[in-house]
Amino acid sequence: MSTRLTLSLDAMGGDNAPGMVVDGVGLSLERLPHVDFLLFGDEKQLAPLLDKNPRVRDVCQIRHTEDIVTNDEKPGVALRSGRNSSMRLAINAVSDGEAAGIVSAGNTGALMAMAKFVLKTLPGIDRPAIASYFPTIRGESLMLDLGANVVCDAENLVQFAVMGEVFARNVLGLEQPSVGILNVGSEELKGHDSVKHAFNTLQNIDLPIKFHGFIEGDDIAKGTVDVIVTDGFTGNIALKTAEGTAKMFGVFLKDAFLSSTTSKIGGLLAKPALNKLRMRMDPRRYNGAMFLGLNGICVKSHGGTDALGFANALDVAVELITDGLNDVIKEDLAHLDSVPQEESSGS
Amino acid sequence: MSTRLTLSLDAMGGDNAPGMVVDGVGLSLERLPHVDFLLFGDEKQLAPLLDKNPRVRDVCQIRHTEDIVTNDEKPGVALRSGRNSSMRLAINAVSDGEAAGIVSAGNTGALMAMAKFVLKTLPGIDRPAIASYFPTIRGESLMLDLGANVVCDAENLVQFAVMGEVFARNVLGLEQPSVGILNVGSEELKGHDSVKHAFNTLQNIDLPIKFHGFIEGDDIAKGTVDVIVTDGFTGNIALKTAEGTAKMFGVFLKDAFLSSTTSKIGGLLAKPALNKLRMRMDPRRYNGAMFLGLNGICVKSHGGTDALGFANALDVAVELITDGLNDVIKEDLAHLDSVPQEESSGS
Repeated sequence: MSTRLTLSLDAMGGDNAPGMVVDGVGLSLERLPHVDFLLFGDEKQLAPLLDKNPRVRDVCQIRHTEDIVTNDEKPGVALRSGRNSSMRLAINAVSDGEAAGIVSAGNTGALMAMAKFVLKTLPGIDRPAIASYFPTIRGESLMLDLGANVVCDAENLVQFAVMGEVFARNVLGLEQPSVGILNVGSEELKGHDSVKHAFNTLQNIDLPIKFHGFIEGDDIAKGTVDVIVTDGFTGNIALKTAEGTAKMFGVFLKDAFLSSTTSKIGGLLAKPALNKLRMRMDPRRYNGAMFLGLNGICVKSHGGTDALGFANALDVAVELITDGLNDVIKEDLAHLDSVPQEESSGS
Repeated sequence: MSTRLTLSLDAMGGDNAPGMVVDGVGLSLERLPHVDFLLFGDEKQLAPLLDKNPRVRDVCQIRHTEDIVTNDEKPGVALRSGRNSSMRLAINAVSDGEAAGIVSAGNTGALMAMAKFVLKTLPGIDRPAIASYFPTIRGESLMLDLGANVVCDAENLVQFAVMGEVFARNVLGLEQPSVGILNVGSEELKGHDSVKHAFNTLQNIDLPIKFHGFIEGDDIAKGTVDVIVTDGFTGNIALKTAEGTAKMFGVFLKDAFLSSTTSKIGGLLAKPALNKLRMRMDPRRYNGAMFLGLNGICVKSHGGTDALGFANALDVAVELITDGLNDVIKEDLAHLDSVPQEESSGS
């Protein structure tokens, strides 16, 4: 951990950028004393922010550009016309070897398109996936894809399973992480063709993956498996449905405590415990979606996050780099060059 | 409401059948004084249960059969070999005109297959959908499909939208219910072909539907729209993800209250309010999934429910019958015979 490393940041990405990016770096100073930052963005805005915080300034270098990718820009357009954007230049820094990874809170689709174009995918991976942690009753699980690929075939799902398993083993430090495919039932005969074929392939795969089989939506929060594999359409909707339900529960809970004087007093007495609960469910703790399958580390912070959330995304990027995630994925995939063939001839 | 009506019940369906079926009828006696019940199932089990409760016995008629559909039976097998099952005979009672609707807590796939085979679909509907209520911050919304159709095309989604809207207007009593399609983003360009084509059709549809457009997963609990339209794969996973998240929240909340003596006292003081919260989220309150699009009223109770949940499913069935739901759906669909053509020539 004593070797210094450099992260490149899209300093203009996110609703609260560039302020929350600079503040996020500030919050991470103690946890990440060995990290330097390249800040891509508007010098006129960034310099005064750094001047206010000399400790942050010491670990940051501004790389000026006035171009930005907006939130409503289509990925294709951003790719063609955003060559000098803060997002694109920050990604270039990784392919140029200047930085070990990139973090952005900007437009997800544009970030994925640009990162895929510049960094390329790992050998054996057709499509990168967005992965993130989910809080569960048992602790936390990893879920992918959360929205990069709206339609996925069986081969994509198998690749997600391999990447997710490697991630859970190396980054989460689990000895034998279990992997499940999200489906409408746990029986083999349920679901559509992609999940059924992926099920068959993973049951016979030539890797020591602990394949659990199918899981259902309520297994996510139960923590039934360590790695949840799904297509980007279903994954994105499951993620946001869970977030929405948690928020609703919070609103209902507040209503309940405000409903009578006695319950108000009860709420005051239980406040420290309830704050702990809030922290446990705090989406900022789970901020930092990883783009897995790219030939380079790329972390997407939530667009609406604050400095605390952005600092968590920085932690995630550093973790992925330090654990050498991509090297292990490459190694595992090299063992597995038979997957696509198995799939097409298999079922 | 004073005209008597008859419901046919699959008395052997569900984990706790037939006890919870008979008890469920008992719980509904006061709310449904105008309803008689045909109980299809094993007389040796049912008669002693009814003998214990003469008030229930007065409104029930046993129709003996020893055949049942098990939970792990494939729909196709159940359809072929379950001709004398309690489930099938209960459905037959509706097509024979003996009962105005059927309720079962048995195997969902088998119930859908049999109901579709016996009752047929409404004119203009290709595939029936499973619909249910969702609790939301604003009140409650209707969501469909929740698992009947794992793969849906645009035409199916449009038909679900029409059925859901009619339902919300007539059964929920909303004047102009809003309808949204579940997607990975609210912008028009997001998602896969089915949702995009359904979006186009609904924007130009020749019915006074208040079409909101796309919604995302977190809009479900927000109550952004009254009717949420989605395919059965996504809907089933969203439903169960929400249920799982709510349960996790409950576990975390309990942990929080038990974490210190002060918070324990707080929990005791807030107990009545917390019980209200629990009731508000109680899945039994939302028990009773409607099979919409069938030429007959068919309600599926959760397989693991108890008498309280089953009684709610009975309420739902009676409501659908009393409101003449299917007549209104037929009327609206008759106006709409242009949808399929529009779809295939449209986009």
